[in-house]
Order: sequence, then structure tokens, then C-alpha cells
Amino acid sequence: MIEFQNKLEKNSQEIDRFLDSYLPSGNGLNSKLFKAMRYSSISGGKKIRAYLVVESGRFLSAVNNKDFTRSKYNELVTVASVIEAIHSYSLIHDDLPAMDNSPIRRGKDSNHIKFDDHTAILAGDALLSWAFEIIADSKFIVDPEKRSEICFVLAKAIGSNGMVGGQQADMDFTEQNYLNLEQIEWIQNHKTGALISCCSHVASILFNASDDQKSHLINYANHIGLAFQIADDLLDLDGNESSMGKPVMQDTKNKTPNFVTILGKEKATKRALEESCKAINLIQKFKLESENLVSLAKYTVNRNK
Amino acid sequence: MIEFQNKLEKNSQEIDRFLDSYLPSGNGLNSKLFKAMRYSSISGGKKIRAYLVVESGRFLSAVNNKDFTRSKYNELVTVASVIEAIHSYSLIHDDLPAMDNSPIRRGKDSNHIKFDDHTAILAGDALLSWAFEIIADSKFIVDPEKRSEICFVLAKAIGSNGMVGGQQADMDFTEQNYLNLEQIEWIQNHKTGALISCCSHVASILFNASDDQKSHLINYANHIGLAFQIADDLLDLDGNESSMGKPVMQDTKNKTPNFVTILGKEKATKRALEESCKAINLIQKFKLESENLVSLAKYTVNRNK
Repeated sequence: MIEFQNKLEKNSQEIDRFLDSYLPSGNGLNSKLFKAMRYSSISGGKKIRAYLVVESGRFLSAVNNKDFTRSKYNELVTVASVIEAIHSYSLIHDDLPAMDNSPIRRGKDSNHIKFDDHTAILAGDALLSWAFEIIADSKFIVDPEKRSEICFVLAKAIGSNGMVGGQQADMDFTEQNYLNLEQIEWIQNHKTGALISCCSHVASILFNASDDQKSHLINYANHIGLAFQIADDLLDLDGNESSMGKPVMQDTKNKTPNFVTILGKEKATKRALEESCKAINLIQKFKLESENLVSLAKYTVNRNK
Repeated sequence: MIEFQNKLEKNSQEIDRFLDSYLPSGNGLNSKLFKAMRYSSISGGKKIRAYLVVESGRFLSAVNNKDFTRSKYNELVTVASVIEAIHSYSLIHDDLPAMDNSPIRRGKDSNHIKFDDHTAILAGDALLSWAFEIIADSKFIVDPEKRSEICFVLAKAIGSNGMVGGQQADMDFTEQNYLNLEQIEWIQNHKTGALISCCSHVASILFNASDDQKSHLINYANHIGLAFQIADDLLDLDGNESSMGKPVMQDTKNKTPNFVTILGKEKATKRALEESCKAINLIQKFKLESENLVSLAKYTVNRNK
């Protein structure tokens, strides 16, 4: 597990280098915006989504007997960095007083605390536009068909029928305790799952995966997304603020129904492990070892152990 | 002028038809989000940006002796609708309590008043993602190179060095009265100008404009953008709430410096007319009449007369 964490860390540094190189900076009238965009994107989090993009691509290249070239790797890093920027935008907006009202994120002040509310709203907006600017830039991804398809898949994953739709439902049904398991799953699949699945999807586009390969990898991502969320709900109950980098017991405090409040701790733990195993089984269907994707599936349910 | 307003109205209806057909709808857990997205996008405003996209394309097709086919028109309507959706997203976020705190927009409750703050934030976010989903969709724009280039140009225009950057500076320097004319122009060129210029830019991409044609049309849009903003500042002073569809005297109330507070009413009026004339001169360089683009430049400074 320590070896895997080193791999995660190395990947995270690579993504930070990209973000640092290409996120805007300067001293103009809008310089506070640049600072806010950088504050929440660079050097934060484990960047599991980025790792999933890069390792999905590396795996597909091995499965299809293609060279994993430097230029292909660079395309993966581009898309992975963009997805992390989008993840950061969503966290900045989620933390706002009008949303979850969270003062702490990734062990430091949330964006709106460090800056102010209007800057946090605009930094999120600007990160979202930046993401599409980078994906659509011919400097980073050579094939225009792929640039366009990745924009499409990504926009769909994070829109009203994806990530943002899940956040809306999560907000609208906070403090209501009549949600059933199916509804909790719907919210999770949209709020967190859609962007995680998208990671394997965009790698499949970049590496010309067959329909079968694409669907296996997307299902793999679906399962680790679900395992990840259930583990998160368990950590919200058991974890501590310093290792989580954000306040814990939030769902209990806000009376938000989640996997643990509905299933109970024991069944939720079992379900997370099942999802992780299903993910590993899907990788094994490729008849080629992928130590990194298997480790990721295991890590998902063992993050803070 | 009445004939021109009829043309604007007809164009606006066409855009509303597109928005109504393709904005999401449904009864899921996220249905409030769909309602909020539609509330602020459909049936609101004169849709001057959309008109500029469509008429730039129609003009380029005449200038280059190409048929203005139905399919080309449909591509213009797609991009025009997307730009209006982006304009709507920016207004929803601008009106939030953490930003301009405006309760009224386009003659009705602002989005966060009609719904609530978290829905308004998410509706803006979702409209932004929807915009890129539509542009990148092969169903609407045939050529992947153009889909990708339009995504790029649009994302740049509305990002941290464009529209959102301008809004950030506008917010950060509200209530400060030491801004000079150059800084006011910088803010306007970013906050309002960048998206307006983008309208002619994307039409130039769709219609394979020469570099010269593209630069003339973008300059035309720059001038009408500036004329439009100065006229807006004048209307903020002289207009009335019912014809503006939003509260007036806001800049005076918020002590925000603008073209009128810096130049005075007379000089500001003169400057707006100059910008409108410069725009018309640029169109005349094409040696082909464009009644619609000339009317638009005139209308910009005569909106509420």
C-alpha cells in the first residue's frame, strides 16, 4: 500500500506541474481570480481521478499492444489535469455558504474563506471554462475528433444530468430522511460517480478502445466510484478531521441520509468491499495484469487505514 | 427601427425554440435544476448576441458568394443559442447576493429569488456545461475541427482572461472611485466585450472567413460592444425600471465608476455614437451592404428610444 501511495503521489506531482504551467497567472485587474483558481487546484488532494485517467490509458495501451509513448502520456496528463480542475471547481462551489457551508477543505481554508464569496463563485466558473479551453486546444490533443468527443463526454458527465444534477438533488433533499437506497445511489452516481466514470471514458477515447474495452473500464470506474463514496460515508462517521482534511460527522450533523445511515455500518462496509471486488473482477477480464488499477480498487476502500 | 425590432424578435423566437427543444427537462430528483435553467434562458431578453452570430454568418455567406443553406443556418442557430445560454448563466451568477445582489432581471424575479441561492449557482454551472455539450455534439455541427475550434474560442472568451475576469475586476473595484478610463474600458472589454466579439468570431469559423474578414467582423463587434455598454451606463442613469427590466441607478447607488461617471453624460453619449459609427465603417469596408449589421450598430445606441 505504501508503494501504491508513492505512485499516487508521483502522479499528483505531475498533475500539479501541468496545472502550475497552464493555469493563468499575472498582475492585472483580475489577478485575485488567478490566485483563487490556483489556490484550490494545485497541491491539493490525492488526485485519484487523475490517476484513474492515466492508468486507464496505460492499461489500454498494454492490452492493445501499443507503445505507451511520451506524447500519448502527455495527452493523458492534459485530460487528467483538466478533470482535477473540474473536481476543484465543484468543491469550491459545494463549500460555499449557499451550499454545504464548509470552512475547511483539504486541510486548509475553503476558497471562499481564503478569498471571499464572489471570488469563489467566479474561480469555480473560470476553472470550468479553463477546462474546456485546454481540452479544445490543438496544442495539447492532436486529433480534432478526439478533442471534440472528450469535450462532449466531459460536459455531459458534469452537467445537469451528471455531477451538477447530483449536487442539486443532494442539496434539495438535505435534512430529509425519507430517501431510500435507490435514491441515495442515484444521487451518488450523479454527484460523484459521473466524473469518476468519465475518467475511464476519456482514456478510452484517447486510446481507441474497442466498445467492449470501453464498457469494461467504465464499469470498473462505476464500481470504484461507488466503493469510494461508501468509504467516504464511513469515514465521515469514523474518521478524524486532520486525516480527512475536512470536517467529519457532517452528514450526521446535517441529518443527510447516506449509505451508512440507510444500510448501517456493517452492511455498508460489506457493500463497499463488494464494489471494490467487482471492479477488480472487471480488470481481470482483460486477461492482463494491471497492478495499478487493482491497487486503486483496493485503495478506494482502505484510504485511511 | 420598428422593422429591425421585428427582425430581432423573430430571431429571438428561433433561439427560444432551440433552447426549449434541447435544454434538459424531466421529473427526476434534479428537476428543480432543469426548471431553473429554463427559467432564465428561454423567453428573456432581446438576444442581441444571438442576432450578431446569425447575421455575421449570413453576411459572410453573401460576401463570399456562398449559398446560405438551411444546414448552415442551423449551425448558426446552435452556436447563437449556446452563447445566449452562456449569457444567461453569467447573469444568474452576477445577480446572486454574493455578487450584485439584484432581485430583478429581465422584468421578473432573478433566478435565486424565484428558486434559491444554491439552485441559482448550480443552474449557472449546468448552463455552462450544457453550452459545451451542445457545441461538441456532432449532431449539431458537422466538422469536428470547427466544433473544437468554437469550443476553444468560446471557452477563452468567457474565462478568467475574458468575461469572468472582467466580472472579478468589476466586483473587486466596486465602491472604489479611483479607476481611470483605461481601467473602465479594460473591465468592459472583458466583462461584456469578450462574449460579444466572440459572436462574430464563431460565425467566422463556421463560414471559413478569411483572416481579413474575421478581423473586420471582430472589430465591428468590439465597437458595438463598447457602444452597447456606454449606452447601458447612460440608461442606468436615465432609463426606467420597467423598460430596462432591471433596477436602474445601480451604479450610482453602488458608487461604481462607469463611462458616464468618468466622462460625464455629454462625452459618454458622443463616445457611444463614435463607436457605433466605427462599427458601421468596418461593415462598409466589405463593399457589400449589410442592412442588418448596420441596423444593429445603430440600435445599440438607440435601444430605449
